[in-house]
Amino acid sequence: MKVSELGERALISRIAGLLTGADNVVAGAGEDDCAVLDAGGEDYILITTDMLHRKTDFPPQMTGEQIGWMSVAVNLSDLASKGARPLGIVMAMGIPPDTEVEFVEDVVRGMDRCATAYGARVVGGDTDSHNELTMAGTALGTVKRELLIRRNGARAGDMVCVTGSLGGAGAALLALDRKIPVSREVLKALFEPVPRIFEGMALAGSRSVTAMMDISDGLALSLHDMSRAGSVGFRIYESKLPVVPYVKGLKKDELLEAAVFSGGDFELLFTVAPEKLGAARKASSLTVIGEVIDEGIFIERGGRLEELEARGYEHFGRLD
Amino acid sequence: MKVSELGERALISRIAGLLTGADNVVAGAGEDDCAVLDAGGEDYILITTDMLHRKTDFPPQMTGEQIGWMSVAVNLSDLASKGARPLGIVMAMGIPPDTEVEFVEDVVRGMDRCATAYGARVVGGDTDSHNELTMAGTALGTVKRELLIRRNGARAGDMVCVTGSLGGAGAALLALDRKIPVSREVLKALFEPVPRIFEGMALAGSRSVTAMMDISDGLALSLHDMSRAGSVGFRIYESKLPVVPYVKGLKKDELLEAAVFSGGDFELLFTVAPEKLGAARKASSLTVIGEVIDEGIFIERGGRLEELEARGYEHFGRLD
Repeated sequence: MKVSELGERALISRIAGLLTGADNVVAGAGEDDCAVLDAGGEDYILITTDMLHRKTDFPPQMTGEQIGWMSVAVNLSDLASKGARPLGIVMAMGIPPDTEVEFVEDVVRGMDRCATAYGARVVGGDTDSHNELTMAGTALGTVKRELLIRRNGARAGDMVCVTGSLGGAGAALLALDRKIPVSREVLKALFEPVPRIFEGMALAGSRSVTAMMDISDGLALSLHDMSRAGSVGFRIYESKLPVVPYVKGLKKDELLEAAVFSGGDFELLFTVAPEKLGAARKASSLTVIGEVIDEGIFIERGGRLEELEARGYEHFGRLD
Repeated sequence: MKVSELGERALISRIAGLLTGADNVVAGAGEDDCAVLDAGGEDYILITTDMLHRKTDFPPQMTGEQIGWMSVAVNLSDLASKGARPLGIVMAMGIPPDTEVEFVEDVVRGMDRCATAYGARVVGGDTDSHNELTMAGTALGTVKRELLIRRNGARAGDMVCVTGSLGGAGAALLALDRKIPVSREVLKALFEPVPRIFEGMALAGSRSVTAMMDISDGLALSLHDMSRAGSVGFRIYESKLPVVPYVKGLKKDELLEAAVFSGGDFELLFTVAPEKLGAARKASSLTVIGEVIDEGIFIERGGRLEELEARGYEHFGRLD
C-alpha cells in the first residue's frame, strides 16, 4: 500500500507502533502535540518538530520574514498547547542553491523575531542544498511536572473553550484562491500566526484546564483528535463560535466553514471544569463553545444537532 | 549574491550574526556541534539538528533501515562530540505520497534501532508530503555542566587524537562511484555509521579532553573548524593516521585521501593534554595523530611538512 492510500493519521499510528518506549518518555510519538521527557529534573522537557515546504505551506505572497516567522510559530504553538515555556528553537533549512542570500537573511530575521517575541531563541540549525525551500524546525520547552496539560484529560461536563477567533487563516486562504483583494490584517492571520505561548502558560498556571491542544489542523479535526485521546465526546454550538468578523467578498457561511474546518488558526482548544471557568478567564481571554459529553462529536446549528465530520487539513490528502 | 556563490560556512556565519543571543544560551548557532542551553538544572541541555535528502545523502544502494539508522546517527554523533548522554530524537519526514508504507516502516525500524542502541528513544516527529524523501532529525541530550566539552578548548602542546579508523566511508563511496564490488563490511562504514556516544561520554567523564568535535565533514575540514574555534593550529602526521586497511580495487593513496578529505566517518576528533593521555586511553580506544600548535594547519608526509587544505564535504559546493 502507498502512503497516499493510507493517509497521514493512520501512517503516524503505524510509525508510533514501531517505536520502542521508555519510562522517561511521558508522552511519545503520536500521543500529543509534543513529546514529553522526564530527565530527572524539576521540570519536564518538551520537544516538537514540524516540517514546512515552499509549495505546500508558503503561498507565493508570503515574504521571507513571514516564512521565517511561520516556521518558528508552528512549533511554538505546539509548546503553547502543553502550557510550556519555550527555551530554544533549532531550524534545519533546505535551500535551493540559486536562492538570494538576502532572502535567506530575511527568513532568518523572521525566525528570530518570532522566537524572541515569545521568550525563546533560535540556538542552532542546519543548512542544506535542496530543490525546494524546506524548513524543519524543532522547539524545546519546559513545564513544571504538576502543570503539564495533556490532550487526554477532558471529562464529561467540562466546558470546551478556545482562545482568540476562528476562521481567519481559512478566510485569507479562500480570498487568495479567488484572487479577492483583502486587507493586510486578513493576510496576517494566515501568514503571521500568533502562537498562544503566554495564554498557554497562564492557563497551565491557573490549574483550571483538563485537556489542551492547538487547532492548527482545524477545529473539527482537533476535536476528533482530542476525543480519541481522552475517550470523550463533544457538543459545540455554531452560534457560540468566535468567527472572524465580516471579510469583504466572503459570505457568512464561508467564514463559518473556515472557522470549523480550515487549518491555520493557531488558537488553543481546551477544556475546563465548570467551577474553574473563572480561574481560566482570569488567565486568558477565551470563548466557551460547547461542552464535553460521553461520546460522539456534534455541532448544534439552528437548533439541530449534527455529527461533526473529521474534515480539515491533512497531508497526503486523505483522512483515516 | 546567491547562496551557491557564498558557500555553506559563510552562509552559516551570516545567519548566526542575525540571531539574538541570551544568557542561558551557552553555545548558540554556528558555534559548536550542538547548541548548549542552561535551563537552570544540574545538567546542560544539548540540541542539534541535521537534514538529509534522498538524492544527496542516501545512495540508491541503501536500504530503508539504513536510511533510518543514518538519519538518527548523524544527530547522535553531534551529541557524542560534546560528551552528552542522548535523551530523545524527533524526526520530521518529508515523504513522496507514492512511497510504499512498508518502506516507511523499514526507515522507522532503522531509526528505532539506532536510537535504542545508544540509550535514546525516538519520541516524536512529523510526516509531510514531499517530492523527495527528506529526513530532518533533532537530537536532545544532557551533560553535567562541568563535563561539557567544547570545540574551542585546545591548547598548544595538546595531543590530537581520533577514535576508530579513517577513510572507511570515503572508500565505500569511491567504490560505489566506480562500480567496484565491495564487501558488506565496507559498505556498512558508509551506510551504518557508528555514532561514538559511549566513547564521547567516557572521554567527557575522564576529564582529560580539552576540545572535541565529530569529523562527519572530513578530518581536514574538521581540523580547520576546530582551529578557527580555538585560535590554535595543528600538525598531524600522515604515517600516524589510522587509515582503513586494504580495500580491494582501491589504491593506498586513495584510501589516504579518503581518510583526510572524505566526509562520512563519524569518528571523534579531540585534543588531550599530554599528562592526561593515560586517562583518555582508559576511557576510549584512540590514536594520537599529531599535536596542537600555535597556528597553521600542517600535515607531515614522507618527512615534508605541507599545509593541509580546507577541502572536504560541504553543501552548496564551495568553501569559504
